[in-house]
Amino acid sequence: MSGRRRSECSSKKAAKKEAVKLEKQRRKEESAAAAATTADDGLDPLAANYGDVPLPDLQSKAVTGRKWTAVGDLDGSFKDKEVLVRGRVQTSRAVGKNIAFLVVREMGFTVQCVVTVAPELVSRQMVKFATGLSRESHVDVEGIVSVPGEPIKGASQQVEVHVRKVYCISKAVPNLPINIEDAARSEAEFERASEAGEQLVRVNQDTRLTHRVLDLRTPANQAIFRVQCQIENFFRQFLISEGFVGIHTPKLMAGSSEGGAAVFRLDYKGTPACLAQSPQLHKQMAINGDFGRVFEIGPVFRAEDSNTHRHLCEFIGLDAEMEIKEHYSEVMDVVDRLFVAIFDSLNENCQKELEAIRKQYPFEPLKYLRRTLRLTFQEGVQMLKEAGIEVDPLGDLNTETERKLGQLVLKKYNTEFYILHRYPLAVRPFYTMPCFDDPAYSNSFDVFIRGEEIISGAQRVHVPEILTTRAEACGIKVDTIGPYIDSFRYGAPPHGGFGVGLERVVMLFCDLNNIRKTSLYPRDPQRITP
Amino acid sequence: MSGRRRSECSSKKAAKKEAVKLEKQRRKEESAAAAATTADDGLDPLAANYGDVPLPDLQSKAVTGRKWTAVGDLDGSFKDKEVLVRGRVQTSRAVGKNIAFLVVREMGFTVQCVVTVAPELVSRQMVKFATGLSRESHVDVEGIVSVPGEPIKGASQQVEVHVRKVYCISKAVPNLPINIEDAARSEAEFERASEAGEQLVRVNQDTRLTHRVLDLRTPANQAIFRVQCQIENFFRQFLISEGFVGIHTPKLMAGSSEGGAAVFRLDYKGTPACLAQSPQLHKQMAINGDFGRVFEIGPVFRAEDSNTHRHLCEFIGLDAEMEIKEHYSEVMDVVDRLFVAIFDSLNENCQKELEAIRKQYPFEPLKYLRRTLRLTFQEGVQMLKEAGIEVDPLGDLNTETERKLGQLVLKKYNTEFYILHRYPLAVRPFYTMPCFDDPAYSNSFDVFIRGEEIISGAQRVHVPEILTTRAEACGIKVDTIGPYIDSFRYGAPPHGGFGVGLERVVMLFCDLNNIRKTSLYPRDPQRITP
Repeated sequence: MSGRRRSECSSKKAAKKEAVKLEKQRRKEESAAAAATTADDGLDPLAANYGDVPLPDLQSKAVTGRKWTAVGDLDGSFKDKEVLVRGRVQTSRAVGKNIAFLVVREMGFTVQCVVTVAPELVSRQMVKFATGLSRESHVDVEGIVSVPGEPIKGASQQVEVHVRKVYCISKAVPNLPINIEDAARSEAEFERASEAGEQLVRVNQDTRLTHRVLDLRTPANQAIFRVQCQIENFFRQFLISEGFVGIHTPKLMAGSSEGGAAVFRLDYKGTPACLAQSPQLHKQMAINGDFGRVFEIGPVFRAEDSNTHRHLCEFIGLDAEMEIKEHYSEVMDVVDRLFVAIFDSLNENCQKELEAIRKQYPFEPLKYLRRTLRLTFQEGVQMLKEAGIEVDPLGDLNTETERKLGQLVLKKYNTEFYILHRYPLAVRPFYTMPCFDDPAYSNSFDVFIRGEEIISGAQRVHVPEILTTRAEACGIKVDTIGPYIDSFRYGAPPHGGFGVGLERVVMLFCDLNNIRKTSLYPRDPQRITP
Repeated sequence: MSGRRRSECSSKKAAKKEAVKLEKQRRKEESAAAAATTADDGLDPLAANYGDVPLPDLQSKAVTGRKWTAVGDLDGSFKDKEVLVRGRVQTSRAVGKNIAFLVVREMGFTVQCVVTVAPELVSRQMVKFATGLSRESHVDVEGIVSVPGEPIKGASQQVEVHVRKVYCISKAVPNLPINIEDAARSEAEFERASEAGEQLVRVNQDTRLTHRVLDLRTPANQAIFRVQCQIENFFRQFLISEGFVGIHTPKLMAGSSEGGAAVFRLDYKGTPACLAQSPQLHKQMAINGDFGRVFEIGPVFRAEDSNTHRHLCEFIGLDAEMEIKEHYSEVMDVVDRLFVAIFDSLNENCQKELEAIRKQYPFEPLKYLRRTLRLTFQEGVQMLKEAGIEVDPLGDLNTETERKLGQLVLKKYNTEFYILHRYPLAVRPFYTMPCFDDPAYSNSFDVFIRGEEIISGAQRVHVPEILTTRAEACGIKVDTIGPYIDSFRYGAPPHGGFGVGLERVVMLFCDLNNIRKTSLYPRDPQRITP
């Protein structure tokens, strides 16, 4: 039964009298269940202005033509206007018996709503109803917008809604496993509280992920995934504008993918199969299929036991592959322009989102050059050497030396985004093209943000005989990649490409310390839920 | 050894003399291997103008600044200009010993290239080299553009290139499993040939897929996947413009997905897991995570044994989910505007591609209305009844009755795109919201193109208790979807959404008869390669 459904009351006065009597009785009954928020008081003459919306009204019963305003849109331009908003009760608190303050949140934006007893408009029961709404319940609020003289601290929108009607759409359980306000706090807040001798609840990363649906509601998380969407979209639009075709390659593969051990295996209708650890082989086949320039955005799967801040068992790969006319620098040119454009676009179009992230997780804007710095691997090794760090000139860098080199590059060139190319062949996959002048090196590159690798790219071997030899040398069973090798026998253009982890780009651009923060529902060796 | 590398010849005359002698000998040697295409004739003074490019020159040796022109861009504006193009030798044929005709193809576009013996420019050996190039080999061709007075039948571009230089970048094996010209033929060509008593090679669907990399090179296939990219891109841009956020949900799930039997199972670090058969549960959780409106483009996996023209074991799902304020018609409104916009966009921006598809696979343009027709399931049943076809009013339509209804709708409303809504609850998934006035029906819809279902959508149940009851009634083990059910306990807005199969949209818009034609590397119960 709802307030709305009983809008046609008989006699207002008689009802009011009866209401006072029954209200006492009801209070008694309800005192034990403060969290219960029904407006089940048939005798409040203003009962139609609040209450729980009954289910049938939420089952597509009617189209009324009412218009809702987004909380994030509420500003001074709505002054004195009546608005209808739908959102969650972030907090509700009573001030005496006549006033309730609600903070209503929608997609990370919050507005303060005031319910004040007023004759013919708002009853005490309504204030009580509003006060009793459990946190995170969904509500419809109707009211008049006002602009207070002073800044509103507890909400993002600098207006107040003077509530005329409030209906509960969906009730949250009274005890939530995570409190959104706790989950939204910055380190600075914890420090301030600690200094003041206060003890605030800290929500650790694992608890956040277990209750991810609640965790996602924080302003920072709302922003992180909007930024991620922007990066992906910009990646796509830029490449399409440069003649790339978006493709989709299969994730189910016969055999064992590129031959690595770290694949998820499964049975495909009786055939041993695995999940693709990258779209590498199929995107190269698309090049041999004459698409010229292709990209793919899709999940890649790694069964590795890497319990680090930067590895996931499933993540979104941004992959590109293109014919090259002469030199792998053509691929690096695309990477260069693409990422500078992405960074520019984020800084220009996502200020609101970056601010929301920064509020909880402060970070310095990424330093990058208009034209991306390119160093050879040998130059990188030399820089490390001069700083007293010896690395194998034909080996790979590790996480630590990469980070150190990042610091040296930042100091010398004032950029946190750069390309390191001409890697030793021995540390690159079998399909990497060796250098023309020294087979110990390869036409390959990695790209770094803030000292961490985010992109790997290279010219590929397009000669089937060399590909076979290289695969064998790398311990790959050539018969498991037969159709791939064969595709080079039908004429294959010189080509190259690169792969990026979407979650890493978001993590490193925003200097977040854990890739689990940038995956909606992360999968790591310890976690396959929710 | 290459022509290019030997550009510094000693004495031209002496060389010429010696060349004649050696040429005779060489011809003898080569007569047995007509397909061998080396220009290994050190004594042709014009040898620098042709030959096989040696590998080091293709290993990023140098950046010369040369500019290549795309074959598809070649038109009259290039008249008398020198161009450099890279493409494949689709055909090469000799006319006597002094002329060779090459048809060079790049991304489905073709241009005729003529190699004619000319003093100081083109030698007979060069003509021979050109003639001997195997089909599908990659070549660089330099020459002068001319515009012939008559239309060129054998190529898409209406200009000719008078070749000055031709180098082979990558040789195709002489015997290809598929000939691109055979793979590109329309039914009409077969009929015409048959009438003329000619026998043409027909490449069946399975052979095409086994040698997909060759099959993809036909103009129709080049166009099909460009159209697919456009559809996906328009889907994305439209939804972003309407406030949707692009998300990625995990494909690896604990338990058994939505509870159906048709899932691929695997072991996830010791935990029984499966591949998501749709992003349904996670996209709904994203709504409960406050994203308001989300969409996802990604692979979905079905282990069903459906050997039909319209089922795949892995396909690309276009999924959307959104809060609804009042009615599931809000979701249908999005579908309506989205698809009309997609169809308009294809017809406006993909004329070249649609023409290329139509040339091999003729089809009528899709008939659709500016505002999409909506019929209730009951109205559909009634239309079928009036046409003498009885169907269970509380059952589902099958492929045949769907097709029949499509014909009736086309006749009556002149549209091949329409929405059928208010399906019987019994034939919809557990998460479908029942109708407010009759629990035998549901707030759901399907969308049809040319009589085949492409979209399923509905309002979802947002009340955890009802969701649990419905799941149990549908035989789902509720404990396997615990985090999903729980996400509705923390306040859940009314919401709805829909899912589309990308390959089906392409297939039905272009009236292709097999979904394998619109999947780059299709996966069906019989096929997991290439």
